[in-house]
Amino acid sequence: MISTHTIQINTQGNTDVINLTGEIQDIISQTKSNDGSCLVSVIGSTASITTIEYEPGLKKDIRNILDKLIPDNSDYHHHDTWGDDNGHSHLRASIMGPSIIIPFVNKRLCLGTWQQIVIVDFDTRPRHREIIIQLNGE
Amino acid sequence: MISTHTIQINTQGNTDVINLTGEIQDIISQTKSNDGSCLVSVIGSTASITTIEYEPGLKKDIRNILDKLIPDNSDYHHHDTWGDDNGHSHLRASIMGPSIIIPFVNKRLCLGTWQQIVIVDFDTRPRHREIIIQLNGE
Amino acid sequence: MISTHTIQINTQGNTDVINLTGEIQDIISQTKSNDGSCLVSVIGSTASITTIEYEPGLKKDIRNILDKLIPDNSDYHHHDTWGDDNGHSHLRASIMGPSIIIPFVNKRLCLGTWQQIVIVDFDTRPRHREIIIQLNGE
Repeated sequence: MISTHTIQINTQGNTDVINLTGEIQDIISQTKSNDGSCLVSVIGSTASITTIEYEPGLKKDIRNILDKLIPDNSDYHHHDTWGDDNGHSHLRASIMGPSIIIPFVNKRLCLGTWQQIVIVDFDTRPRHREIIIQLNGE
Repeated sequence: MISTHTIQINTQGNTDVINLTGEIQDIISQTKSNDGSCLVSVIGSTASITTIEYEPGLKKDIRNILDKLIPDNSDYHHHDTWGDDNGHSHLRASIMGPSIIIPFVNKRLCLGTWQQIVIVDFDTRPRHREIIIQLNGE
Repeated sequence: MISTHTIQINTQGNTDVINLTGEIQDIISQTKSNDGSCLVSVIGSTASITTIEYEPGLKKDIRNILDKLIPDNSDYHHHDTWGDDNGHSHLRASIMGPSIIIPFVNKRLCLGTWQQIVIVDFDTRPRHREIIIQLNGE
């Protein structure tokens, strides 16, 4: 039994981290499947889905480490193609990936207490994001 | 309803980026499922599957950033094990991951306009690659 | 047909890499599905699942490269939040991701000969880990 849902959110960009766990767990709670998998996938090439311990310190840490590893002020070839300024956003998103899949059992996501599903938006401006939640269960 | 398909391609190695989106969308269009998930997984430990805005600038940018972060000229312990020269290829592939899963709805992959599914081949020589496409839909 | 299984292991932490392929293949061999997908997901926010050529050289190389890219001795904001010492562990886990999904065909995982499914535990101490294996097949 497959059901597909959409979450719409607004982000601040610039490696903004937003917790999606509550909304996703609500979707699972309202469907008929007890056990299965939950696919979370963001539309677009400058954001990623992952899990993190969602607390203010790590939200800063992940921005800082990515600013160091994949800096926003390099002369990326992508900027020559379109006149864009978000080459680093694309590279971060491609390396971290656009989707994640997490099992659920007895209608509960199989996550640790300190583990949340988040979107990380790397773009250089606020964005409206559409995130697909697809449950495959029985 | 699960169906498994194979894409065979030749790559140039050296962080070669190849767009698979058209072939994958064709496979989805030809099956009976309308909605479901599309798993894309490469066989082997020196290549990854991800999404990227597929344009020539970013193809260079992703090679450049990975050359900086995980350089090809370090003395990796892997080279002592087998006499290989592709320690960096393995590390890049393990960090980025060998597979991706993307939902489809009404027989269309849920991707942005500027978001393509690609294989990135990190090996140090041209390779023939087998990529598994598995649809699970209804 | 969905079935959910658990693997329990003890790790040494500190980017310990443990091969799970044999146990996962055994689970697939004992179920009724011939073809499908195998989701492998670790509970917790300081470990990742990926594939790697499992040999002693690369086990050292992946620790070394992550020590260089995301060092354990930085002043992470996460340490201020809880008095923890594992900010780097969280960042490594979030960037590499907590889960992987690999197809199987004729009851065999679609992996290369030199490609194994592993857990990488980034925490700063030995940990007991629970890993969910969920098969969706027919």
